[in-house]
Amino acid sequence: MKILVINCGSSSLKFQLIDSDSEQVICKGLCERIGIDGSQISYTPAGKDKVTVVTPMPDHNKAIELVIEALTNKDNGVVSSLSEIGAVGHRIVHGGEKFTKSVVITEEVIKAIEEVSDLAPLHNPANLIGIRACQKVMPGVPMVAVFDTAFHQTMPQDAYLYGLPYSYYEKYGIRRYGFHGTSHSYVSKRAVELLGKDAKDLKLIVCHLGNGASISAVDGGKCVDTSMGLTPLEGLIMGTRSGDIDPSVVEFIMKKENSTVADVTNLLNKKSGVFGLSDDLSSDFRDLEEGYNNGHAGARRAVDAFVYRVVKYIGSYTAAMGGVDAICFTAGVGENSGFVRKLICDRLGFIGAKIDVEANKVRGEEKTISTPDSKVTLLVVPTNEELAIARDTVALCK
Amino acid sequence: MKILVINCGSSSLKFQLIDSDSEQVICKGLCERIGIDGSQISYTPAGKDKVTVVTPMPDHNKAIELVIEALTNKDNGVVSSLSEIGAVGHRIVHGGEKFTKSVVITEEVIKAIEEVSDLAPLHNPANLIGIRACQKVMPGVPMVAVFDTAFHQTMPQDAYLYGLPYSYYEKYGIRRYGFHGTSHSYVSKRAVELLGKDAKDLKLIVCHLGNGASISAVDGGKCVDTSMGLTPLEGLIMGTRSGDIDPSVVEFIMKKENSTVADVTNLLNKKSGVFGLSDDLSSDFRDLEEGYNNGHAGARRAVDAFVYRVVKYIGSYTAAMGGVDAICFTAGVGENSGFVRKLICDRLGFIGAKIDVEANKVRGEEKTISTPDSKVTLLVVPTNEELAIARDTVALCK
Repeated sequence: MKILVINCGSSSLKFQLIDSDSEQVICKGLCERIGIDGSQISYTPAGKDKVTVVTPMPDHNKAIELVIEALTNKDNGVVSSLSEIGAVGHRIVHGGEKFTKSVVITEEVIKAIEEVSDLAPLHNPANLIGIRACQKVMPGVPMVAVFDTAFHQTMPQDAYLYGLPYSYYEKYGIRRYGFHGTSHSYVSKRAVELLGKDAKDLKLIVCHLGNGASISAVDGGKCVDTSMGLTPLEGLIMGTRSGDIDPSVVEFIMKKENSTVADVTNLLNKKSGVFGLSDDLSSDFRDLEEGYNNGHAGARRAVDAFVYRVVKYIGSYTAAMGGVDAICFTAGVGENSGFVRKLICDRLGFIGAKIDVEANKVRGEEKTISTPDSKVTLLVVPTNEELAIARDTVALCK
Repeated sequence: MKILVINCGSSSLKFQLIDSDSEQVICKGLCERIGIDGSQISYTPAGKDKVTVVTPMPDHNKAIELVIEALTNKDNGVVSSLSEIGAVGHRIVHGGEKFTKSVVITEEVIKAIEEVSDLAPLHNPANLIGIRACQKVMPGVPMVAVFDTAFHQTMPQDAYLYGLPYSYYEKYGIRRYGFHGTSHSYVSKRAVELLGKDAKDLKLIVCHLGNGASISAVDGGKCVDTSMGLTPLEGLIMGTRSGDIDPSVVEFIMKKENSTVADVTNLLNKKSGVFGLSDDLSSDFRDLEEGYNNGHAGARRAVDAFVYRVVKYIGSYTAAMGGVDAICFTAGVGENSGFVRKLICDRLGFIGAKIDVEANKVRGEEKTISTPDSKVTLLVVPTNEELAIARDTVALCK
C-alpha cells in the first residue's frame, strides 16, 4: 500500500509518499508560503532530481491538489493515479488526554482535535486544515491521525502534574503532555530491537536533539517522563527556545522591557536557546561546533549550557526509572553531531557509560557508540517520524 | 561576644541574641505587624517562658528599640545594657553577583544592596530598613551583611545561565542565583565534619526541605548548582510555590483567567505547591502525611509529586557532579519528617543508597540514616541559619 504522510502547518505542508511494503520513500516534498505571495512546491521523486514549481497557492486545498499533481504527473510523477494512494497519515501536534494512540479520522475525531486546540492554538487548527483539504481533494481515501503527544500519555501522575492548584489541571488541562512522541516511540522501539531484549526489561533514555529538542524516559516500553510540557517550550535548551527557566523570568522581562506577555513568549520561543546564548551566532549546531573550536565565547557558552542541561536530564531520568540500560541519540544533532554526543557522554561516567571515540564518528546511521565494557549502551538511532506515521496508518487502514 | 542576628521583613522582624563563645541562643523573638494595627513583640529568653507584649510599632526603628528593651529590661532581660551586644548580623536576601561572601556593612555596601534590589523587590528594601533602624538605635555597633545568595556564587556558567539571549544576563542580570545559601553552606560544612573527610574529596547534595524548599550540589566544598533561580519560585514543589513549570503556563493561565501577570505570579507563589496540588488541604507536611495515610487523594498526589521532583533533582545533581557521596536532609520537613525522607530514599537505589528504617525515626537531630552498606551516606543535619550568620559576623568583627 502507498501511504501519503502529511505534516500541515499554517502556511506550509510537508509530504512523503511511502510504500508500506518496502518502507521506502517514493517521493517527498514541501509546499511553502501557502496563502502568501511567492508560494511554491518542491519535491524529490526517489532517485531523481528535485523539482521546484513556483505557482499561486491561495489555500491548502490548492496545495493538496498540487501535491496530487506532483505525484501523478507524467514527467516526474511516481504513481499513475490518485487511486494508488491507499491512505493518508496526518501528523497532529496535540491530542490532549483524549488520544493515547493513532486513530482513523472520523467527524468525531475531528471534533475532538478541535476541542483540544486551545492547547496548541498555532498547530492543531493548521493540522485540521490539512485534514479537510485532503478530504476534499481525495474523497473516500481513509485517513489516520497520529499525535505528537500520544506516546507520552502513559506518564504517571507524579510526572505529568505541575505544582499548581489541582483545579487548574481539571478545569484547563494544565499538565505536562510532551511532544516529539512519534519520534520517541519510534526510536525507543528500534532501540529495543537493536538491543535484542524484551522491551519490558529495558530502561531507555531517548535524546531527541534537533532544532526542537526533548528527552524521554521509557521504562518497559512505556514513556514515564519527558522534558517538554504543556507546550514544546519546556525542557532542554533548544535552537531558539529557552527550555526551563524560573517562571518569574516572564514577569521580570515584561517589567524590564515594558513588553507584553506575548512579546516574552515570542522571545522565549524564537530568540532564545543556543541562538540567544551564543549572542545570535546561530541556532545550527554545525555553526556552533565551528565557533566552539575557534574559541568563540558565545558558541562555547551555548554548547556548554546545552550539554549540561542534557546531562542533568539524563541523571534525572536515571533517577526516575531507578536506572538506565541504554541512551539513544536521535534527530539532527543527535544523529549527526559526534561532537555534541561526545561532550554529553564524557559526563556520564557516574552511570558507567563509556563512549567509543571511533564508533562515535558515525553520522545518521544506527550504531552502538559505547565501548564493550560500558555499563550503559550508547546508541545512535536515526528517527523517522514519517515512517512511523505510515506504519500506524497502514495498521489502522488494512 | 554577643551577636544580635536580625532577619527583617517588610512588616516583621525576627531576632536572636547568640553568645558566640558557647554558640548558644540567649534570647530569640519576633516583632509582628510593624506599621500595622495590632503590632506585637514576642520573645523567649533561654530557659524562660515566652513573653508577648502588644504595643504600637509605627516603624522598624520602634521595633528595634523594643528588641533592645526586651533584651535589657530588668524582669526578662538577658543583658545588662546595649554595650554587651558586640555586633549585629543581618540576613540579606539578594546579593546579586556583587557579594560572594559576608561583608561588614558600610555606606558602600548599603548602596550595592540597593543596586540589586530590583532582583528582590520585596526583600532587599525591607532588609535595608532593618539595617538603617539598627544603625539609628545602636550607633557605633559593627554590623555584617550575610547574603542568602552568596554561597551559590561559585556555580559555573553552565549552571547559572538560562537559555536566554546572553544580553539579558548582561543588561538585566537574569540568571540563576539560588537562595537558602546560608543554610546550604552551614549544612554542607557540618556534613563534611560529620563524615570526617576533607571537603575537597566530597560530593554532597543538600536537600533543604521546608515551606520554601531548595536543593544544592556541593562539590569540593563549593556550590556547583542549586534549584532556586532568579527568584525563590523555581525548582522543587514547595509549600505554596509551584517550582518548575513550563514557562508558557504563565501566559496560558493569564488567557484562561483573563488575569494579569502579577495575579499569576501571586498564584504561583501563594496558592500552588503541595497546598494547591492537595486541593488546598494544607502546605504543612504534618497534615499531608496524615492525609496520605488516610488515603486523601489530594495529599497523596501532592506528596508523590513533591517526592518525585526531589528524586529527579538528586539524579540531576548526581549527574552534574559525576557522583555523590552523601545526601543531607535539613529544614522543617527534611529534619523532622521521617515519612518524607523514607519516600525519597526508597527511590535512590540506583545510586546504591539504602535507608536504615530505625535510624530514620530521628527528628531534628544530626544522624546518619543510611545502612552501613549504603554506597551513599544519608544524613539528617538540622540547619541553623542564625548561628551561621552569627559566626560570619564574629569572624568579620573580631
